[in-house]
Amino acid sequence: MKKITAEILAIGDELLYGQTLDTNSHWISGKLTEAGIRVIRRTTVGDNETDILHAFAQAEQRADAVLITGGLGPTSDDLTKPCLAKYFNCEIKIHEEALAEITAFFEKRGRAMTETNRQQAALPVCCEKITNAIGTAPGMWFERNGKVFVSMPGVPHEMKKMMEDAVLPKIREKFKPPVIVHRIIRTAGIGESFLADKIAEWEKQLPPHIRLAYLPGLGEVKLRLTASGEDEAILHEHLQKQIDLLRPLISEYIYALSDDPLEKAIGNLLREKKLTLAIAESCTGGYVSHLITSVPGSSDYFMGSMIPYAYEIKMRQLGVKPETLEKYGAVSEPTIIEMANIVRAKFSTDIGVATSGIAGPGGATPEKPVGLVWIAYSDKYKTVTKKLQLGTDRLLNIKLASTALLNLIRQNLP
Amino acid sequence: MKKITAEILAIGDELLYGQTLDTNSHWISGKLTEAGIRVIRRTTVGDNETDILHAFAQAEQRADAVLITGGLGPTSDDLTKPCLAKYFNCEIKIHEEALAEITAFFEKRGRAMTETNRQQAALPVCCEKITNAIGTAPGMWFERNGKVFVSMPGVPHEMKKMMEDAVLPKIREKFKPPVIVHRIIRTAGIGESFLADKIAEWEKQLPPHIRLAYLPGLGEVKLRLTASGEDEAILHEHLQKQIDLLRPLISEYIYALSDDPLEKAIGNLLREKKLTLAIAESCTGGYVSHLITSVPGSSDYFMGSMIPYAYEIKMRQLGVKPETLEKYGAVSEPTIIEMANIVRAKFSTDIGVATSGIAGPGGATPEKPVGLVWIAYSDKYKTVTKKLQLGTDRLLNIKLASTALLNLIRQNLP
Repeated sequence: MKKITAEILAIGDELLYGQTLDTNSHWISGKLTEAGIRVIRRTTVGDNETDILHAFAQAEQRADAVLITGGLGPTSDDLTKPCLAKYFNCEIKIHEEALAEITAFFEKRGRAMTETNRQQAALPVCCEKITNAIGTAPGMWFERNGKVFVSMPGVPHEMKKMMEDAVLPKIREKFKPPVIVHRIIRTAGIGESFLADKIAEWEKQLPPHIRLAYLPGLGEVKLRLTASGEDEAILHEHLQKQIDLLRPLISEYIYALSDDPLEKAIGNLLREKKLTLAIAESCTGGYVSHLITSVPGSSDYFMGSMIPYAYEIKMRQLGVKPETLEKYGAVSEPTIIEMANIVRAKFSTDIGVATSGIAGPGGATPEKPVGLVWIAYSDKYKTVTKKLQLGTDRLLNIKLASTALLNLIRQNLP
Repeated sequence: MKKITAEILAIGDELLYGQTLDTNSHWISGKLTEAGIRVIRRTTVGDNETDILHAFAQAEQRADAVLITGGLGPTSDDLTKPCLAKYFNCEIKIHEEALAEITAFFEKRGRAMTETNRQQAALPVCCEKITNAIGTAPGMWFERNGKVFVSMPGVPHEMKKMMEDAVLPKIREKFKPPVIVHRIIRTAGIGESFLADKIAEWEKQLPPHIRLAYLPGLGEVKLRLTASGEDEAILHEHLQKQIDLLRPLISEYIYALSDDPLEKAIGNLLREKKLTLAIAESCTGGYVSHLITSVPGSSDYFMGSMIPYAYEIKMRQLGVKPETLEKYGAVSEPTIIEMANIVRAKFSTDIGVATSGIAGPGGATPEKPVGLVWIAYSDKYKTVTKKLQLGTDRLLNIKLASTALLNLIRQNLP
């Protein structure tokens, strides 16, 4: 089967000057890859006619499809549209349907439409208009000699909606790429190389049409299985068979057979089991609570937190015994056990968890270096602690300790 | 003065497949722009010899300097080094100094060195080695016909260190770009277009060698002033003069004349004024506390937080009066006032602040739509509240409400 290839072209001075991070090219890369299209190059050029036309010509030579974002604004430094008209050698005229859509856009919002806005409906006559459902700059679809150029806005949410609603379906219809099916397996608590060792034999026996990718994150590793072929149902079956073989090898590390992050997977478990959670976090300073509450509906199971950052607050507000703090210090196993137990009792929840450590760069002692973190889990059956020795980067320590605590919850839920 | 131009080339299949977001090219773009070098194009290609060599040749035609990241790993799919050797037509040999550095790297960490690691010290003989102080793959510097090629690792922190310690100084020495001086002015509490209106006259009178850029962020706008010329001290004077003219126009919105984020600027103020802070956050779920504690040394002024997420916890643990909650609800001005005052009293701090709102997507009522958030600030002199009506995106609401609260603190500190 012939590989369908694509190039992505991002246009805008703000990208080259490092003012705006280009997340569009990354997102489009992922979507095309998922759709079975091979991305062979990405290019970024500024708002400059010569560079834009040169990039068009180069990309057309190499790829079947060229996806362009940016440079569609209404101001004079936005050159994508005139460059496309020149490149495809056709004039620009008001597109009546596009004009009606833009007019409706402004009417709906009760805003007056200017001549500049009206000019956004002017399109090269040789292109097919693509509706922008949530913005004013229409997309454009060009075809020549079996190749396709697509121009989309640079505003990420407008581009994404256009890509999913119109561009990806049109590309599938035009090029009929192989059917691609993905499955994600999310793991935590094991490093990439250890994970690879554990599943090496399984990986070797994968059939040629199924590929495995390791996508390491902060304190976790995602596995992505990709099957390509012609029949979607059969590919799903093949992937399920492989996942059934994989699961027993690493069951203790798998927390989701979907793309849900750890905080969402835990939320689902808590809701299913009708359990409630309270948190006492010191060195993580609110980050664990933020992760938990970033999930919609988390008020179903999350009751609240205490962040006893200062020593006195650990005693006076949370209620850790002064003897414990004096004898063992705030960053110690006896203290973390009290913190988890007390917050569970105070907030009357099923589960109580806690963190205490030295995030850095200050606060270390000879016995307690930067990166030392204690975490604990408590329910009515048991209390479990874990000692972590992390690195020297404060923000990284906060995030890694938070992920480790979420994983401790997952492993210990009754 | 001749413009010095650069292109950036990122190499790696994981970028084209959308597995890894390329933040390197963005960061390098910003650094080169700051150094007075004009970035004219960025390209990403996969681990493929033909594409890499083609990208080298194209970039050499157009730019004075070509900065390459990625493809320097020890495995066979990393092709940057052999491609550079081929392109510059020279053989690869063990570089004794590089080998000594890599050996020391492993010895320091007490790890055994493999033959694969040793091969990382093999470099094209026509390049100058650049030390990698925190990793094992050395950088490479090539010169030909007045043009420069630099190869750096793809691991972001290794690349950044190499760029700042060695590559930028060498580029400055080689090309002597114009002297560029930047000043950042950070503002919060005003939108970009309103800000632009307020400073339009000032912007018009800027001399031609001083340029202004608006860098909008979440709930804030950064202004960057860039002066280019030949004498650094004079440029600093010119910028200071412009900033002195600018400040009175927008003084109430400026929170830093540096690149410190809001949480750091507030931390500096609290430390200077010897004030302490406690937080009661409901709808922001820990995010305000996370921002505050992301700053090293925040334990100097931050005592702790309560996150009374559930209704009962607002009453029982924080101590909001049941009458207040019953009569006005959790998302109301009377409740937020009590929350801020109570947390200040309970934690015995100078300042108490609070958030309560409907982050969404659930939880709305006809009178209280998603995005409604109350925030409050309390000290011994006054209690100040603010009502926000944000949008429908949960995470965005959490972040915008947090920024608004930080700004409320800044505006009201005694």
